[in-house]
Amino acid sequence: MRPSGRQANELRHVNITRNYTKHAEGSVLVEFGDTKVLCTATVEERIPQFLRGTGEGWVTAEYGMLPRSTGSRMQREAARGKQGGRTMEIQRLIGRSLRAAIDLKSLGERSITIDCDVIQADGGTRTASITGAYVALHDAISHLLNTRKLKSSPLHGQVASISVGIYNGTPVLDLDYDEDSSAETDMNVVMNDAGAYIELQGTAEGHAFRAEELQSMLDLASHGISQLMEKQREVLAVS
Amino acid sequence: MRPSGRQANELRHVNITRNYTKHAEGSVLVEFGDTKVLCTATVEERIPQFLRGTGEGWVTAEYGMLPRSTGSRMQREAARGKQGGRTMEIQRLIGRSLRAAIDLKSLGERSITIDCDVIQADGGTRTASITGAYVALHDAISHLLNTRKLKSSPLHGQVASISVGIYNGTPVLDLDYDEDSSAETDMNVVMNDAGAYIELQGTAEGHAFRAEELQSMLDLASHGISQLMEKQREVLAVS
Amino acid sequence: MRPSGRQANELRHVNITRNYTKHAEGSVLVEFGDTKVLCTATVEERIPQFLRGTGEGWVTAEYGMLPRSTGSRMQREAARGKQGGRTMEIQRLIGRSLRAAIDLKSLGERSITIDCDVIQADGGTRTASITGAYVALHDAISHLLNTRKLKSSPLHGQVASISVGIYNGTPVLDLDYDEDSSAETDMNVVMNDAGAYIELQGTAEGHAFRAEELQSMLDLASHGISQLMEKQREVLAVS
Amino acid sequence: MRPSGRQANELRHVNITRNYTKHAEGSVLVEFGDTKVLCTATVEERIPQFLRGTGEGWVTAEYGMLPRSTGSRMQREAARGKQGGRTMEIQRLIGRSLRAAIDLKSLGERSITIDCDVIQADGGTRTASITGAYVALHDAISHLLNTRKLKSSPLHGQVASISVGIYNGTPVLDLDYDEDSSAETDMNVVMNDAGAYIELQGTAEGHAFRAEELQSMLDLASHGISQLMEKQREVLAVS
Amino acid sequence: MRPSGRQANELRHVNITRNYTKHAEGSVLVEFGDTKVLCTATVEERIPQFLRGTGEGWVTAEYGMLPRSTGSRMQREAARGKQGGRTMEIQRLIGRSLRAAIDLKSLGERSITIDCDVIQADGGTRTASITGAYVALHDAISHLLNTRKLKSSPLHGQVASISVGIYNGTPVLDLDYDEDSSAETDMNVVMNDAGAYIELQGTAEGHAFRAEELQSMLDLASHGISQLMEKQREVLAVS
Amino acid sequence: MRPSGRQANELRHVNITRNYTKHAEGSVLVEFGDTKVLCTATVEERIPQFLRGTGEGWVTAEYGMLPRSTGSRMQREAARGKQGGRTMEIQRLIGRSLRAAIDLKSLGERSITIDCDVIQADGGTRTASITGAYVALHDAISHLLNTRKLKSSPLHGQVASISVGIYNGTPVLDLDYDEDSSAETDMNVVMNDAGAYIELQGTAEGHAFRAEELQSMLDLASHGISQLMEKQREVLAVS
Repeated sequence: MRPSGRQANELRHVNITRNYTKHAEGSVLVEFGDTKVLCTATVEERIPQFLRGTGEGWVTAEYGMLPRSTGSRMQREAARGKQGGRTMEIQRLIGRSLRAAIDLKSLGERSITIDCDVIQADGGTRTASITGAYVALHDAISHLLNTRKLKSSPLHGQVASISVGIYNGTPVLDLDYDEDSSAETDMNVVMNDAGAYIELQGTAEGHAFRAEELQSMLDLASHGISQLMEKQREVLAVS
Repeated sequence: MRPSGRQANELRHVNITRNYTKHAEGSVLVEFGDTKVLCTATVEERIPQFLRGTGEGWVTAEYGMLPRSTGSRMQREAARGKQGGRTMEIQRLIGRSLRAAIDLKSLGERSITIDCDVIQADGGTRTASITGAYVALHDAISHLLNTRKLKSSPLHGQVASISVGIYNGTPVLDLDYDEDSSAETDMNVVMNDAGAYIELQGTAEGHAFRAEELQSMLDLASHGISQLMEKQREVLAVS
Repeated sequence: MRPSGRQANELRHVNITRNYTKHAEGSVLVEFGDTKVLCTATVEERIPQFLRGTGEGWVTAEYGMLPRSTGSRMQREAARGKQGGRTMEIQRLIGRSLRAAIDLKSLGERSITIDCDVIQADGGTRTASITGAYVALHDAISHLLNTRKLKSSPLHGQVASISVGIYNGTPVLDLDYDEDSSAETDMNVVMNDAGAYIELQGTAEGHAFRAEELQSMLDLASHGISQLMEKQREVLAVS
Repeated sequence: MRPSGRQANELRHVNITRNYTKHAEGSVLVEFGDTKVLCTATVEERIPQFLRGTGEGWVTAEYGMLPRSTGSRMQREAARGKQGGRTMEIQRLIGRSLRAAIDLKSLGERSITIDCDVIQADGGTRTASITGAYVALHDAISHLLNTRKLKSSPLHGQVASISVGIYNGTPVLDLDYDEDSSAETDMNVVMNDAGAYIELQGTAEGHAFRAEELQSMLDLASHGISQLMEKQREVLAVS
Repeated sequence: MRPSGRQANELRHVNITRNYTKHAEGSVLVEFGDTKVLCTATVEERIPQFLRGTGEGWVTAEYGMLPRSTGSRMQREAARGKQGGRTMEIQRLIGRSLRAAIDLKSLGERSITIDCDVIQADGGTRTASITGAYVALHDAISHLLNTRKLKSSPLHGQVASISVGIYNGTPVLDLDYDEDSSAETDMNVVMNDAGAYIELQGTAEGHAFRAEELQSMLDLASHGISQLMEKQREVLAVS
Repeated sequence: MRPSGRQANELRHVNITRNYTKHAEGSVLVEFGDTKVLCTATVEERIPQFLRGTGEGWVTAEYGMLPRSTGSRMQREAARGKQGGRTMEIQRLIGRSLRAAIDLKSLGERSITIDCDVIQADGGTRTASITGAYVALHDAISHLLNTRKLKSSPLHGQVASISVGIYNGTPVLDLDYDEDSSAETDMNVVMNDAGAYIELQGTAEGHAFRAEELQSMLDLASHGISQLMEKQREVLAVS
């Protein structure tokens, strides 16, 4: 039995709100139950040093948690003077996941930065971030199309992400904080709309997981991601 | 004529939402028009080094802006590796303002940290922060009273803040970004409910201001702060 | 009665020494009683990034305290690896104050940096810094005129600064350290020679201050600043 | 055809040298072909803050690359003033992998730090690090047993790691730099001697990978890890 | 011929002023010609971590240059966020030199920090620093004797320092900036009052120096240091 | 009697291995007994800012110790976020020593960086670094000659370094860690093949050293450096 009373293959209530703030080219509040992340996309007509002269664009992400988005207050990374290892790991994951959905050549010499800031955390902030970031990225691309800076969309795939894990010996979908903190295994899965894997990051917290457990988790993930993509398409259908 | 069409002595629409997020002992979203700041209060049963053995508590504040809370994206301070001078100046101001409303002796050996994070900026983020932070602090104190960690409230005053300035030669109340960026003079006023000044920070951006201009601005500020305090009391009256 | 035996409206002995060191384009030792600050002005034929192409120049300030300028030794900021919030606040204040006295367009594409380094501290280091920095800036401008890099002076005003406060219930002028550390209210005032305000920063340390107390403090400040400006003109009259 | 001429399921030549340097409690040079990593284990009779009072010990890892371990020189992280995101990601992975092999309760209140420093890089530095670090950890435990600080070994499993990927459309084992830099998919697999997964980190660099590709890669990894464990046991058998 | 017109074996005019500022236990302005360094000694009743429990005290030094102490402005190290290599090298040298003159056991569990801040630089700042720092240290020790924290002085030697070099093929004493910047060889010598060497740091800037050149430089240094020590004793004789 | 049983004028066993790693233009493992340092030379076709437009090249060095190269683990400088004073001092010394052997004008607008990373430390890491770095630099120059980027060698001298000291009252050559940590005086000498001094850095750890002790140490150093140069020439003779 899950603490939340959910079925093993049941997502939390998912909500995606576009145009959440007014300045960004894409601004999306994504909610996976009590986890709330604000994903904003910024288009800038410049590219990083290492891409100069290649004609390619860039998509990258930054991630942060508000200090009291969590149960006990975390030190503000800006005050500590550096981003922690976990933060870096997550923002690199989000960036790679989004780049797997876009043709950087077609984007042209500009960059899109997706900021994922966790307003409230209850497990799964990185998977919610990726799922919301895709919608923000889509809105930023629409902005470029609407302002005629792009003629056709460089997006060639849809991306979403969910966590799966082994909780009390049972594979479950979309772990909340209670489950996550006592799960034996935790895996984050990023997939595209062709059902293929973009990222797979599994960690045995308690005991190592066997091949059949891996298979069950992958099945759950695939099932959950289909629903998230349905949700993404739904909100993007509204212009 | 003000860009927003407001009267010289007219506040923007003010909204204060309590319990905006679930983990913090106080969590308030404050809106001054399009300026939106999340103020969370965290109670911790420990005090900073310099207060050890004094029996006193501490109230402090931290301030941050989400990178795309503004018209163009600002670099994330956590990624830059340090907080800028403006950030430090603002968080020190918020902290001092709140400490003027509370008896640290009565608070006892604990600390309350108010995080003010700007979700969307349109001028006046520091005055909105102080006004919202007071409500979050009040909620944190209520939490301590409800959990019987305190027997009586150490709060001895109510605090709110507003900006005033000289815009196109006319003193105006509660400047939005359009006004702020072209104002000749900009002043932030923090007052208590006895009508006395806690902080006064006036800066001549364009030309120096004369004594009579100062007086007009102080009158406007006093008028605006009364309304903000009315609003604070109103939302705090709901339990 | 003030600890120093001064009258409420009495400045400490003020001394301004030009050409204190030999390398800088302006080099001024300013003394407000036992507070001693070395203000040097450096002219550089380059401007910060954000002004490129505007044709404007820049005036900025940096502030520091020698580790043992104070009663107990402070950690060296260079060794700590960052400037504290107070330092940043003060150097931003000095810079804004000086920019209020100069036409940056007429200065041309060059920058002047004023370094204010506290040799000995006894309260009022920021007001002494501003008062001395103006003289150093004036000398740097004279240098530009003498070397024919400028044809006419871009300075359009004179700037000086003093602190006022409520000490033992009485408004007093130019607080020294003993007064400052137990004052109920502390205000730094920066004015120009037209008697208008450039900066006003008042902080209620103990109790909030009322309108009439504010008025008394402003009157004292105006009185003190007139004398400081007299002193500035006197030392600048000597070529 | 692989650039190195290897079969798809063929490891590079693997070499593990114990006691490579003289000071550390465990010191292992691990070579996967031209990739050479020095793994040293340091035992310290103290534990990190967050474990105080729990009676548990700690195992952690740090990772670094010598500046010219790679084809072109990388900036020294000590000179840059911070560790990059990739470095943090890798050292966190090594630490988690090793902790999956040891009972921290039985280790007692002490910590073991494994430093993995890359002397020469040719792809697979993180998998070589984990494989070598296990041997260094084993030697450090032997040292604790020999010096009678521990009565029985807290190690409850053997850990090794290998990379797999899709290169030119074919799943291959143990990618070298040439393969890695042009692989479509890259996955690092950490397993224990029971054939279960400890970590799984797959990234689609070029195109997303399908379920059957995942399966092929996992089969290759399992095959390679068996051989690595054989090698580990072989070198550890010599006392 | 030297630019200053001095003889090869002639020191610049040396001036040592005690009690230059009022807060420090020792405060000395030392002048070697136009080089002016403020040396303050701070006594603190605590010792660094690594000496806890040894019963020994500590003497250390920090060094800094005011940004415009030099011909062109140097970036403020506090603003850069770190001390440069030259700064660290010099402050380590000063610290070691002073520790050679004191018995740390007899000093007891306290520390003395000497801050050497360069007000104006014209070559030889490190040798002036050491020479002035000794006097400041002596005053701090007198303070401890006068306040009966020490019964007898832990100082067992006198320390002074001078630079020597090969300028235009000729060995010269006490190089000023003009000479220093074009000298072929530059050597800093620290000696005690028994005529023995405490530190010797010679660097061939232009061409390597031969044994006989070394001997000439050492003779000059010995000659100069005798005069500096005479000067130190003279100013210390005044109580 | 020396702990190692060596004669006072006896070097440790010296070994210099070229082509130790495969990527660098010069890669040398230098061993002075148990001290092992990897010196790699990297050629880059760019120069630092301060040399732009001068037509000159640059040679510089960086130094680091692997965390467990020493008896007890040192904190990793990359993790601490800065290089310590000792590290900076040493890398500046290595850089200056190498620049004394090369004509930067003839090198042309390119830079050579020598990384000296200590694999195992047993005293004398800086002297071993300089001695090995010269060989790595020589190999990098040969690479430039072989690839016809240079027509003739800009090297005009050979450089090597050794430590000398007073141990138990006796002058000794090439101190190992046991001797170094209890020596009364420690001096590092860098010489060229004309028998002249490039750097001389002597420090009295215990008691100050007299002129005759200095002379004995210099004689020992000269003797040791001759042998090191012989060794360098020997290994460089093999193509």
